[in-house]
Amino acid sequence: MAETAYSYQILHQFSKQIFSSIGCSDEDATLAADVLLSADLRGVDSHGIARLSGYVRLWEVKRINPNPSIKIIHQTPSTAVIDGDSGLGLVVAPKAMQIAIEKANSVGTGWVSVQNSNHFGIAGYHAMMALKEDMIGIAMTNASALVAPTFSTERLLGTNPIAVAIPAGSEAPFVGDMATTTAANGKLEILQRKGLDTPDGWVQNKDGSPVTDAHALKNGGALLPLGSDVTHGSHKGYALGSIVDIFSAILSGANYGPWVPPFPAYVPMPENQPGKGIGHFFGAMRIDAFRKAEDFKKDMDHWLRRFRSSSPVQGQSRVMVPGDPEREYEAERRVSGIPLLPPVVKDLKELGEKFGINL
Amino acid sequence: MAETAYSYQILHQFSKQIFSSIGCSDEDATLAADVLLSADLRGVDSHGIARLSGYVRLWEVKRINPNPSIKIIHQTPSTAVIDGDSGLGLVVAPKAMQIAIEKANSVGTGWVSVQNSNHFGIAGYHAMMALKEDMIGIAMTNASALVAPTFSTERLLGTNPIAVAIPAGSEAPFVGDMATTTAANGKLEILQRKGLDTPDGWVQNKDGSPVTDAHALKNGGALLPLGSDVTHGSHKGYALGSIVDIFSAILSGANYGPWVPPFPAYVPMPENQPGKGIGHFFGAMRIDAFRKAEDFKKDMDHWLRRFRSSSPVQGQSRVMVPGDPEREYEAERRVSGIPLLPPVVKDLKELGEKFGINL
Repeated sequence: MAETAYSYQILHQFSKQIFSSIGCSDEDATLAADVLLSADLRGVDSHGIARLSGYVRLWEVKRINPNPSIKIIHQTPSTAVIDGDSGLGLVVAPKAMQIAIEKANSVGTGWVSVQNSNHFGIAGYHAMMALKEDMIGIAMTNASALVAPTFSTERLLGTNPIAVAIPAGSEAPFVGDMATTTAANGKLEILQRKGLDTPDGWVQNKDGSPVTDAHALKNGGALLPLGSDVTHGSHKGYALGSIVDIFSAILSGANYGPWVPPFPAYVPMPENQPGKGIGHFFGAMRIDAFRKAEDFKKDMDHWLRRFRSSSPVQGQSRVMVPGDPEREYEAERRVSGIPLLPPVVKDLKELGEKFGINL
Repeated sequence: MAETAYSYQILHQFSKQIFSSIGCSDEDATLAADVLLSADLRGVDSHGIARLSGYVRLWEVKRINPNPSIKIIHQTPSTAVIDGDSGLGLVVAPKAMQIAIEKANSVGTGWVSVQNSNHFGIAGYHAMMALKEDMIGIAMTNASALVAPTFSTERLLGTNPIAVAIPAGSEAPFVGDMATTTAANGKLEILQRKGLDTPDGWVQNKDGSPVTDAHALKNGGALLPLGSDVTHGSHKGYALGSIVDIFSAILSGANYGPWVPPFPAYVPMPENQPGKGIGHFFGAMRIDAFRKAEDFKKDMDHWLRRFRSSSPVQGQSRVMVPGDPEREYEAERRVSGIPLLPPVVKDLKELGEKFGINL
């Protein structure tokens, strides 16, 4: 399928107008568009503007409140729990991260768990907010259950990502941003569209047997935790996904495990939900709460140079550090635009027509 | 090889006497034996008493100071950096974790990075110190480089474990404790002793090609990060191992990457070391800094019961939660004793003779 490139500015303006149309304040609409489009810039197409109509459908079924009253419901000098009041995760998350940063400014570190939120876009955006403050940033979220624990036939966890952003001096920073599964759901969707099988180790069928059917999830199957099987450490991916779930939802009072609300508005909500909305978890650690920032950055630059200059295996031109591919995507896409597939363009144009906005 | 079972008390007393013989105070010798033997109890044999003679050899080459002056060299209300003064990691680590716990008592969370330490035993012990305080505990350490980043031929990271312990109410707690590699080095050593090949995805050779040679590391090969290859997410395991390295060593001023001191005393130290000793990182988060502890525990029990009662795949009797296998090992070994292989017994008896201590 031939892609069409749109400039960042055009897509940002379009997204902002859509968010305004559903009732977001000007400030919130801008912030939501910033977060959403950062995924497209960074090459994480599954979490960008392709999801815009999905957010609108959640608003249509009254699962998203465009004017949330976001509140701290409990706090200590280094912690807070936030009620997102069913707001867009794209808005709730950066506001919660900002509170973590303020607490870090005051007592060295800040840790914020969030209840009653929705899908927050790419985790990396929120973690990276800490970089300009000379802080390490951490962001996690739970998500609706698509992943089976090791040895289980049931989907009990989301793809539950972890992002960690670490500042440096003259070198580009370290930004790890990863689902705790072997493959992200977005990669599976690409194979589904192309009619291809998955590599081994990505999915299992409803009996829990390993398969390579890209449609396995539609038939009761599940994504596999990072590690794929127990011989290759899937119990570790399962543990990591669980930690994200617990920090995001049990510390905050959100829904957890199989009770997390689904992103598609047409999927029924799980019954007997124990909490409120989706949960997130954010952390900010001030570098100079540990060590002089300039000493840290000198060592961090040394670390980054050593890894980036490491000998590559045959067939690879170099070794990359987490965050390098996404930064290169961003540099290129800010110039050449963001390529969108025809079905995404069609979906956005239809969305625009609904609100009288041209793409 | 037929194993011989020794009681926990016998092995604890023996270890304590050895630590006393190299000059540890009575209190430190007891603590070091507690930490060391907790690995044997929990079934992590590679990190237990089998390493005792290795610690003594580090003392013999003056890399371990049996009477360290452990000091806070920088702090804020929620953070500290500790200089371990070349002490046993088995002693430095629980003392650093205790400081994290005290800070959490005071401002909600505590975060401690440690320089100038040595191998700290199993990460899970330190994280679990938080449980009885109604806190979540986190422990990490870097280690000498055995692991190649994705697409690199070089060993730049240790097996860098992460442990997270989360308290519950009536259910047994969640305790994740994992190397950030596909397989821990201890599992590789078992295959070497048995003359067996590894499964695919555990190791690469000196050119960075995947192999199943259990001796690959002796010939310039490397362990693979969790995920094994890029198709199965090795860039995520690489990112996790890197985060552990940076939190443990660049926040504290310890050695990082390929410069971390090796555990075997006969292996030469890396040249041009940028920091001091090995680094660790600890965290403690008070549950009631987020939410009433009883509400958290109610939800945590609900989470644990849901996962533990999940439908198992055929051939498995149940689904486990991280920490379950180790807790079952401990229950059994406290009664039946700790099984030791003949070469381990021989090594311990020789060690005992050196100091006039009977096993």
